[in-house]
Amino acid sequence: MSIRYKITFAYDGTRFYGFEKQPGLRTVEGTITDIVNTMAKNPQPPIKIYGSGRTDAGVHALAQVAHFDFPFNIPVDGMWRGLNSMMPLDIEVKKVEKVPHTFHARYDVSGKIYMYRAYLGHFTNPFKRFYTGHWRIPVNVHKIQIALKDLIGTHDFTSFCASGSQVKNHVRIIYNATCHYDHQENELIFQFYGNGFLYNMVRIIVGVLLEIGSGRRPVHDILRLYKVKDRNQAVFTAPASGLYLKKVIYKGEDPKHPTKFPKDTYNQDRQH
Amino acid sequence: MSIRYKITFAYDGTRFYGFEKQPGLRTVEGTITDIVNTMAKNPQPPIKIYGSGRTDAGVHALAQVAHFDFPFNIPVDGMWRGLNSMMPLDIEVKKVEKVPHTFHARYDVSGKIYMYRAYLGHFTNPFKRFYTGHWRIPVNVHKIQIALKDLIGTHDFTSFCASGSQVKNHVRIIYNATCHYDHQENELIFQFYGNGFLYNMVRIIVGVLLEIGSGRRPVHDILRLYKVKDRNQAVFTAPASGLYLKKVIYKGEDPKHPTKFPKDTYNQDRQH
Repeated sequence: MSIRYKITFAYDGTRFYGFEKQPGLRTVEGTITDIVNTMAKNPQPPIKIYGSGRTDAGVHALAQVAHFDFPFNIPVDGMWRGLNSMMPLDIEVKKVEKVPHTFHARYDVSGKIYMYRAYLGHFTNPFKRFYTGHWRIPVNVHKIQIALKDLIGTHDFTSFCASGSQVKNHVRIIYNATCHYDHQENELIFQFYGNGFLYNMVRIIVGVLLEIGSGRRPVHDILRLYKVKDRNQAVFTAPASGLYLKKVIYKGEDPKHPTKFPKDTYNQDRQH
Repeated sequence: MSIRYKITFAYDGTRFYGFEKQPGLRTVEGTITDIVNTMAKNPQPPIKIYGSGRTDAGVHALAQVAHFDFPFNIPVDGMWRGLNSMMPLDIEVKKVEKVPHTFHARYDVSGKIYMYRAYLGHFTNPFKRFYTGHWRIPVNVHKIQIALKDLIGTHDFTSFCASGSQVKNHVRIIYNATCHYDHQENELIFQFYGNGFLYNMVRIIVGVLLEIGSGRRPVHDILRLYKVKDRNQAVFTAPASGLYLKKVIYKGEDPKHPTKFPKDTYNQDRQH
């Protein structure tokens, strides 16, 4: 009887062609699949990895989640060490758990938290180019904070969904959305907690919010975008490099106070 | 009559084969030389760039300095914008000044400040692998701080000089050397201010200090290394990825209180 493992892992998305396995390309899912199968001595049929969802090329994760069924019963600590000893340097397994076979990393998701880092410097900072989006037009954070309130609740996000998506239902719930300015880093840090996000939805929302902050759209333009249901009204997609999948929340794990994001979680998540 | 410009610039050393120009390789000096010559419409003989000194492949700079003689008199603000508009994303010009022709970016250096970031996490952090050195053995910061006192003053650094060096005089002055633990990042941050540094000297010193901190050498082993004048007694060179050229100090600019490094300069240097 195989053991189902749930793994939580971080990756620097810079050098991956996104999460999803693609023949001949270096992807996160493909890399982890190869490692897990090597550890299991290449069983037939091969072990499959089920992620909580995809991320695009260049998008990072502080705590992505996946599950797989492993033929041997290895203690979680041994699995954690074994996986990390084989992982490339741009993936790090942070946590390994044994879970019942009823657990599914994708279907049991009840929410996700994404973070977006927008760097406001005049020129690109050499150390931030792969780790932030860059916005050089002056912004009014207060305007963005007013606009964020229009995101909270249940809305039809058709205007915020990239055309590549096959999904028909564009209604999603956003439980919380925040933005603060980090003086030391000269960055706007956005956080979004919702029950699910459409293809490119966070990056399109951030694009609209930055345009609102810079006075290129009225403060309540999001309310108009809900109504028009037209992606052509929100063309700018903020760059992948600033986006981080920060947390995947499973059924029964919902935070008691989703309206408060801890201020310093970014650094907390990065350290060990 | 040409104008001599002094430029101060940052770079992410990850994708450069070091600072110094080398045929067929992407280097910092080579990249800036090409840009300056393009801006000057490729004069003959070509414009030469004089840096304050080399950095190795993978080593970063927060404020490297160079000078060059430009055939046209362009205001410093225009030169700053012009250079940055042509620079690749991993170099950023922070400051442009017009200087007298008597100024020389290399020969007028009176001191340099280097910083080293050593990440202490159990596994490599995907987001830090190109920007820190990694040291996974437990360290006692207090031991390192005692050892740092042995560095200060005038010493023969033969044991701390890589064999590739042609330099015969191995005596250097270290004005200040500090180390503090950054809890949030789980990193040791070293800073060294000296009148000059030999080839790989900072990285070898950091290697010895980490070994002292982890109990692999006696606390005052640096005093012994001064005497033996033997590089084979200090083999470990801390990785290039953790090293940052932080400041170049020119004659007449010497800080009044070199014994105090501002705590938060790393972030200050990064922002605009």
